[in-house]
Amino acid sequence: MTQMLKAQYSERGPVPQAVIQAVPFERPVLQPGQALVAVLAAPINPSDVLMLTGQYGQLPPLPAVGGSEGVGRVVELGPDTQGPSMGQTVLLPVGIGTWATHVVAPAARLVPLPNEADPRQLAMLTVNPPTASLLLSDFADLQPGDWVIQNGANSGVGSYVVQLAKLRGLKTINLVRRESAVAGVLAQGGDVVLVDGEGLSERVKAATGGAAIKLGIDAVGGQATMRMAAALAESATIVNYGALSGEPCIVTPRELVFRDVTLKGFWLARWFRVTPQAEQFKLLGELAGLIAAGKLHTPIQAGYEVAQIQEAVAAAAAGERQGKILITPTHG
Amino acid sequence: MTQMLKAQYSERGPVPQAVIQAVPFERPVLQPGQALVAVLAAPINPSDVLMLTGQYGQLPPLPAVGGSEGVGRVVELGPDTQGPSMGQTVLLPVGIGTWATHVVAPAARLVPLPNEADPRQLAMLTVNPPTASLLLSDFADLQPGDWVIQNGANSGVGSYVVQLAKLRGLKTINLVRRESAVAGVLAQGGDVVLVDGEGLSERVKAATGGAAIKLGIDAVGGQATMRMAAALAESATIVNYGALSGEPCIVTPRELVFRDVTLKGFWLARWFRVTPQAEQFKLLGELAGLIAAGKLHTPIQAGYEVAQIQEAVAAAAAGERQGKILITPTHG
Repeated sequence: MTQMLKAQYSERGPVPQAVIQAVPFERPVLQPGQALVAVLAAPINPSDVLMLTGQYGQLPPLPAVGGSEGVGRVVELGPDTQGPSMGQTVLLPVGIGTWATHVVAPAARLVPLPNEADPRQLAMLTVNPPTASLLLSDFADLQPGDWVIQNGANSGVGSYVVQLAKLRGLKTINLVRRESAVAGVLAQGGDVVLVDGEGLSERVKAATGGAAIKLGIDAVGGQATMRMAAALAESATIVNYGALSGEPCIVTPRELVFRDVTLKGFWLARWFRVTPQAEQFKLLGELAGLIAAGKLHTPIQAGYEVAQIQEAVAAAAAGERQGKILITPTHG
Repeated sequence: MTQMLKAQYSERGPVPQAVIQAVPFERPVLQPGQALVAVLAAPINPSDVLMLTGQYGQLPPLPAVGGSEGVGRVVELGPDTQGPSMGQTVLLPVGIGTWATHVVAPAARLVPLPNEADPRQLAMLTVNPPTASLLLSDFADLQPGDWVIQNGANSGVGSYVVQLAKLRGLKTINLVRRESAVAGVLAQGGDVVLVDGEGLSERVKAATGGAAIKLGIDAVGGQATMRMAAALAESATIVNYGALSGEPCIVTPRELVFRDVTLKGFWLARWFRVTPQAEQFKLLGELAGLIAAGKLHTPIQAGYEVAQIQEAVAAAAAGERQGKILITPTHG
């Protein structure tokens, strides 16, 4: 077996790739109840990068191993340990530190996943698909045929929003920040794709025939929130889940007061904290089924070895990407 | 009888007092069902000023008579007309154009009010007290002993928020924009009065012993909204009803996403539009009772004749006031 590696950081700083590095570790001796899992794929999400820079809403104690989600294959079970069979593809528990060649996890918390599905797509099950699903379901009462507007449409969450909306019979207006991102979102199935900016509400009106839009999904903040608010129907809701602009959300009292628009936020970590586990498993099970069936997938730009962690984080933190960056350790 | 006058505007413009003027009119010949009411008092509300500048959410057709609320005394009833007795103090229907010496109104829509109460306080019944009451009741589940934070605390609405909160057993943190406004809000019964600005959330925490604040009432917008959000408890709501700063509301994704703060708006005109009339009358009746009993009142800076309308509007539009500006026609 090749050397075991984990991507670890002992401090936080403004340049995320500068604080993390691959460090070797000894093959662990398993305790009863533990499993050793060879990591197959683990994404670098925006929230992971914010944990490296210290800008996230909850930060693990240091030193920490990066990576909040991923899948692997069971390669060893501890003594007297019940759990998934050897060789089974499993979902790793959230927040366990997945940027590693191998992870030790409680066997009882490993959720079996279809062995035949693409592990790189399954590796992104826990964060972005439930975020997209809950953004679409928990903030507005939408009926098939209704329109939804989102910005950051070429992001990971944005891609799942497009696909889940289509599966639910909803139509999407997708905003991107550069012309070069339009084709990718159209290819994912976006009904309308526009470059965000001046005159947005008029362009949205023209594209939808003046349809009443009851939900806006905002990943950008700043003036983008304000433009989105003006494109929404009276009494609509904007739910913000990110700040790609680096700026706070702006909404005029005109929209809030005279047009009854509500601005809310969504954080998946809170949802996991306050939602009964049965409900969590139900949603993740549905989404895993869609991914395994090929009905839900997201573009991948590149996979990196754990040894390449700094290069991988730099690529993930860069603005213009064609898809997700993943850690995909090779197991020889 | 002295000459009848109404304050009329035929265009809108950035300087509110420049577009309005007092114009004489003939004593009207009443139709069946109509009443002639001698206006006793009619306030100049911020929303009235925004109608003159064209910045309000709904604008009457031009030419229009200014003033959206007020009280008067019935001086004539049309032929075969049922209604309040001659000499009865009555509430004028909302939006009827109250800045006038006399108003013709449908007799059936005149609500009798106590003749012995101060008509200047009763004249402000329809707009600010229900706004304050609904801001306190419709956006958070508050229990006696809970804290509420508001800015613009020395405004008309702010004054009623302080008094109604006290009547309901709530405690108020009141933010003002200048030191000179502190004493007035304390005199109204504010529990804590602070000058808004740097380090607000720490100062609020010190003043309340770190109490969880579930409701923020924002009349200012801009950075003030952001500072208020940071002073609130997790999952709290800010309700905005004004833009005294002239700037849009700003809230960081940190507050929205990681702390689950919601930003909403409130507009009394919508509440009147969507709420059953019985419920409207119930609230106005309660508030009229409190005003007549002297439990609810607001400082008045000055009363003006209709002929002085330009001076009155200029005074109402000025930033630093010690109380409301009213039109209080003298009836000789």
